[in-house]
Amino acid sequence: MRHGFIFFVIIFWLVGGLSIEATAEDGYRLWQRYDLVKDTKKLKQYRNHLQAVVIEGNSPTLTVAKQELQSGLQGLLGKSVTFNSQLKTGNILMVGTPQNAPAIAALALGEKLKPLGPEGYLILSTTVHRKKATVIAANTDIGALYGVFHFLRLLQTHQDITAISISNAPKTQHRILNHWDNLDRTVERGYAGFSLWDWHKLPDYIDDRCLDYARANASIGINGTVLTNVNANALILTKPYLVKVKALADAFRPYGLKVYLTARFSAPIELGGLKTADPLDAEVKAWWKAKADEIYTYIPDFGGFLVKANSEGQPGPQNYKRTHADGANMLADAVAAKGGIVMWRAFVYDNEVPEDRIKQAYNEFKPLDGAFRKNVMVQVKNGPLDFQPREPFHPLFGAMPQTPLMAEFQITQEYLGQATNLVYQAPLYKETLDADTYAMSVGSTVAKVVDGSLHKYELTGMAGVSNIGNDRNWTGHQFAQSNWYAFGRLAWDHTLSSATIADEWLRMTFNNEEQFVRPVKEIMLQSRETLVNYMTPLGLHHIMGWSHHYGPGPWVDKKHRADWTAVYYHRATVEGIGFDRTAAGSNALAQYFPPVQQMFGNLTTCPEDFLLWFHRVSWDYKVKSGRTLWEELCQRYYAGAAGVQQMQQTWNAQQSRVDPERFRHVKTFLGIQEKEARWWRDACVLYFQSISKKPLPAGLPRPENTLDYYMQLNPRFVPGI
Amino acid sequence: MRHGFIFFVIIFWLVGGLSIEATAEDGYRLWQRYDLVKDTKKLKQYRNHLQAVVIEGNSPTLTVAKQELQSGLQGLLGKSVTFNSQLKTGNILMVGTPQNAPAIAALALGEKLKPLGPEGYLILSTTVHRKKATVIAANTDIGALYGVFHFLRLLQTHQDITAISISNAPKTQHRILNHWDNLDRTVERGYAGFSLWDWHKLPDYIDDRCLDYARANASIGINGTVLTNVNANALILTKPYLVKVKALADAFRPYGLKVYLTARFSAPIELGGLKTADPLDAEVKAWWKAKADEIYTYIPDFGGFLVKANSEGQPGPQNYKRTHADGANMLADAVAAKGGIVMWRAFVYDNEVPEDRIKQAYNEFKPLDGAFRKNVMVQVKNGPLDFQPREPFHPLFGAMPQTPLMAEFQITQEYLGQATNLVYQAPLYKETLDADTYAMSVGSTVAKVVDGSLHKYELTGMAGVSNIGNDRNWTGHQFAQSNWYAFGRLAWDHTLSSATIADEWLRMTFNNEEQFVRPVKEIMLQSRETLVNYMTPLGLHHIMGWSHHYGPGPWVDKKHRADWTAVYYHRATVEGIGFDRTAAGSNALAQYFPPVQQMFGNLTTCPEDFLLWFHRVSWDYKVKSGRTLWEELCQRYYAGAAGVQQMQQTWNAQQSRVDPERFRHVKTFLGIQEKEARWWRDACVLYFQSISKKPLPAGLPRPENTLDYYMQLNPRFVPGI
Repeated sequence: MRHGFIFFVIIFWLVGGLSIEATAEDGYRLWQRYDLVKDTKKLKQYRNHLQAVVIEGNSPTLTVAKQELQSGLQGLLGKSVTFNSQLKTGNILMVGTPQNAPAIAALALGEKLKPLGPEGYLILSTTVHRKKATVIAANTDIGALYGVFHFLRLLQTHQDITAISISNAPKTQHRILNHWDNLDRTVERGYAGFSLWDWHKLPDYIDDRCLDYARANASIGINGTVLTNVNANALILTKPYLVKVKALADAFRPYGLKVYLTARFSAPIELGGLKTADPLDAEVKAWWKAKADEIYTYIPDFGGFLVKANSEGQPGPQNYKRTHADGANMLADAVAAKGGIVMWRAFVYDNEVPEDRIKQAYNEFKPLDGAFRKNVMVQVKNGPLDFQPREPFHPLFGAMPQTPLMAEFQITQEYLGQATNLVYQAPLYKETLDADTYAMSVGSTVAKVVDGSLHKYELTGMAGVSNIGNDRNWTGHQFAQSNWYAFGRLAWDHTLSSATIADEWLRMTFNNEEQFVRPVKEIMLQSRETLVNYMTPLGLHHIMGWSHHYGPGPWVDKKHRADWTAVYYHRATVEGIGFDRTAAGSNALAQYFPPVQQMFGNLTTCPEDFLLWFHRVSWDYKVKSGRTLWEELCQRYYAGAAGVQQMQQTWNAQQSRVDPERFRHVKTFLGIQEKEARWWRDACVLYFQSISKKPLPAGLPRPENTLDYYMQLNPRFVPGI
Repeated sequence: MRHGFIFFVIIFWLVGGLSIEATAEDGYRLWQRYDLVKDTKKLKQYRNHLQAVVIEGNSPTLTVAKQELQSGLQGLLGKSVTFNSQLKTGNILMVGTPQNAPAIAALALGEKLKPLGPEGYLILSTTVHRKKATVIAANTDIGALYGVFHFLRLLQTHQDITAISISNAPKTQHRILNHWDNLDRTVERGYAGFSLWDWHKLPDYIDDRCLDYARANASIGINGTVLTNVNANALILTKPYLVKVKALADAFRPYGLKVYLTARFSAPIELGGLKTADPLDAEVKAWWKAKADEIYTYIPDFGGFLVKANSEGQPGPQNYKRTHADGANMLADAVAAKGGIVMWRAFVYDNEVPEDRIKQAYNEFKPLDGAFRKNVMVQVKNGPLDFQPREPFHPLFGAMPQTPLMAEFQITQEYLGQATNLVYQAPLYKETLDADTYAMSVGSTVAKVVDGSLHKYELTGMAGVSNIGNDRNWTGHQFAQSNWYAFGRLAWDHTLSSATIADEWLRMTFNNEEQFVRPVKEIMLQSRETLVNYMTPLGLHHIMGWSHHYGPGPWVDKKHRADWTAVYYHRATVEGIGFDRTAAGSNALAQYFPPVQQMFGNLTTCPEDFLLWFHRVSWDYKVKSGRTLWEELCQRYYAGAAGVQQMQQTWNAQQSRVDPERFRHVKTFLGIQEKEARWWRDACVLYFQSISKKPLPAGLPRPENTLDYYMQLNPRFVPGI
């Protein structure tokens, strides 16, 4: 009793000393949770193999690697592991590079390390001085840090570490988050609160979150971040802001996270007082060169610029009758000497052009193939429209063999339920990456374009539009963390499967119980199809609410541009529905290589998931299920809403396996999603029925309200705009 | 070894189970920290006296009282205390009301309880069934909850609990936070991130923070919250938002926290489609009555409305040639039946009136004394201008014996250094509360007006403009938490001293070490004088930056209204400086009672802290120090900046006594404050020197930059606007 009492005191003294939060399980720790390994066999194995850690060298990057191992091993193993820079005992973990660690040099890993480049690493079970050892070796400190995170992931997911032989390197060079964050801390299309960047208190005060943000990115291999919105404010290029950017860059550097900025093309006029921003004007070139040089005095490893030009009203080279290549090359020349790059977005369309909007990027850029400087990448969205729940891959992939193309995915859920819908996006990213462009021959996947292997690009990269804000759980929805994680993992290695990534993430973020991981992984893997069904089945697209893009809006019409309406895209009449993009229509199909044209162009071979994207068909058209198109459309909408109810049941059964805070959070959000799914279903079915004049198929419950009710709903102050 | 090993495992299993945050000490827990009592003698005493807790009844309020005691005692005592609803052992803590707890009824406390009203409580060391017991008794459940928080505070601050005899009740009825929060989650004059109210996810999702917000308020006796900005948006009165307000009201109710809303006076036109908002119009009255009835269907205990009318462009009764009383009474009639109140702000001034702005509220409201309904309070700012670092008390206090006046203080630091300056405001609040109006005789303090004792008001209240946002530490600056705390404590009991409140707050928020509490309390108590010195010494006022109010702007001139400039207020010329408000000038002095007029009006008796507020004096005027006014002004500016350096030294000496996160946070913010203090000092000294043409007194270091440099600084995206 007395003994137990002392015991309590000590425990609570500890706990008190460590100061637990009132709401500890708010999701702040992301997937970087280092709680004690509950599998006792594995715990024993890990303790046995990890009796000491040897890290030689004390660069900022090795220092954070050491800190990560200290907190990681202490938490996972439930004991503090001794760190020393010499080899005393056996069963050690050794981390470093041949350059800074003689013991690693002694292992003569040169041949194995060479192909791994500046970011790859080896994790090997081996022997050092005839004693068992685990070695994390790399060519650089940052490679070693990536190896450390990989090794911690092995423990977090309860992998065997007795005979490791891992050789790993990223498949793309530039793995970059795009933050659409404004200087007033609002975030365009952000649904997780407001911007992490507290510009007003920078450079003096750096929130601990900024370091945790860099840690999280390093743990999944993200090595770049664009701090500012592509709809850019030139002010970020002025000295008062550059010193703030420097403060963040200094904080991120040890984690291998490079800082990039968005460049407002008209900055020479707005800041420099020049009369023009013509990229071929000597003064303009000089202004940008001087500006770049100034930036490099603050941030010697500044990554470069991301640019949105001549799109949606943004200024650009075309204002001066110059090409996108002219604009990109001018900026590229300004940063080239210091190793900077320019990421020039292909998301452009002209306010005036009557052309099918999805054809415009290809029409603009294809002719410019080969016209760009070596340090320019053209950044292409996964699909030709705008991050819809489902789009075919962008026809530019494969079409520019002489111009490195960077893939741009949207992690934030602008069109995928925003703050509250559980949608695991790895299957969406993979659908694009695995798509075959047939650019050279069968197997010319988008992934091979992006990783450079198809066209031998010297520059490669993948960009993800961030879903991160200052909500305590970073991403608004606890499960939205999985999209940040999945983007990073796929940017590093696009061959990973959606299931593998979901499995890792669930084990690290929640727990390793099979009865939890199996069913909840199913929720994740089904979630995107479920959303497509209740929002835009059968290839429908761009039928969301006006401007804020929240909720259904298939009736949206008569805006100042046709291609910002819904009716422009679904074209529903009493005869039928769909956008004819075959030769008989806009012929957008012609932008794809012949095998793709044939597959999508032929009604019988076109996957039904893309039917109404490429074809205009009658309501009575018979689909593979034997149903008419109208019946199938209704069935899909109802199946989508029902799918959310299925997700709810699966989640509710997990109450005993999840902490109360996160269980309640996800349960509540699923409740909101279920409401929103029915909202989409009922509004869309009623709207299309008002046009098709067809009866609701037998057996489907009637929508709860009238079409008028849904059309007059007017959500106000929706986040993200 | 093996034993110690198991020990570790169990501890880390616990710790793991409890999941500690990476950045545990982020300040989220405010003053509600329940870490183990480190004073072993006291710990022993507490454990001995608190062996069991008896709470009878299970109302929502008693349930949260029980939860608070469970977590509080477990943390503070380092053991779980048994809770039961019968009296078994001795040394128990008994909580409840005579109505729900027979054992408390048996103590026959009726006579002691009666005067304590619906919110007061007793905490007594007594005997129950001849056994030692501590009793927390009240007339209502909420009184019991307040008693529980008081009792926990005794333990947090290491008080002796062997012989307690506490009888406590609030001195004002309505203790209310005013949130200037907009529906897009921006916060007017907010410097702690963005609004806590996530309107988009309400009513379905309620962040745990909302409950912790209510807990924190209950712990200091705040019993009302106005959720929306006084510059009101009528949308909050529509059904989609009222259901969201209901969700918050339901969450807050167990904590005794009532919800209020701001009413946009023109709502009947904007929402109701009426042609007028004339308060005497029958349709308008009917619209407000129906709207109030609708609100009460959602929120049966809705508190009522706060209104800013005919001020700074807001609509109001004067648009229809009606008085403030006409407007307030119409709204009062709409909520009277359900027990609602109207708080009508006296902060009004006319865009056109040429009169000294500080005289206008008095001129408008004094004639209306007695014209308001019984359920109206007129809400008067502490001073007649606008929350300046120092103002004389508002002349309306004492001038409206027949109209309940509510004092409005600004907790958010609009004019007191905003996000980053450490300014403990209790001394500012106390300066107003302790000021003598001489309304009836000597000793007619503002506090006696506000608590109703002077004029026998039937309604009493105190309002504080919130400094709370979604920053993890709630208030941006760790020490700004003390202002939220101090406002609540003073609204409950204005007789508490600034030192007592600082002492409590430091012990609860940091620790009980004398070597910490004594010096850091000194920082707090000196902080406001220090700020006044580097911003607006000797009665200067309204010389801050234009619009965002960040930084110095004594040169601000030529705006579309004179009384929004700085030169209007300081009136500096080569002869002298100051605003003559004596009979020879604007005669604002005449609004005070004769003894106050004489004190302020006579140069020799006017406190130098208010010199330039009431008098225009020559630069060569000799002040009490023997210096000329010019010399004194300079000395004060330099003393202010030096004071911040003193604060830094004191804080830096505390490193060993504060957790690293909060130590670094405060140290960094003090660094920013030190910069900003020098910015104020140098800009103001140079500006006034450019007018006085006087040399900088010998011995004072020269400003770092030229006046032009300071005048062209143009901070962008300053938070809070």
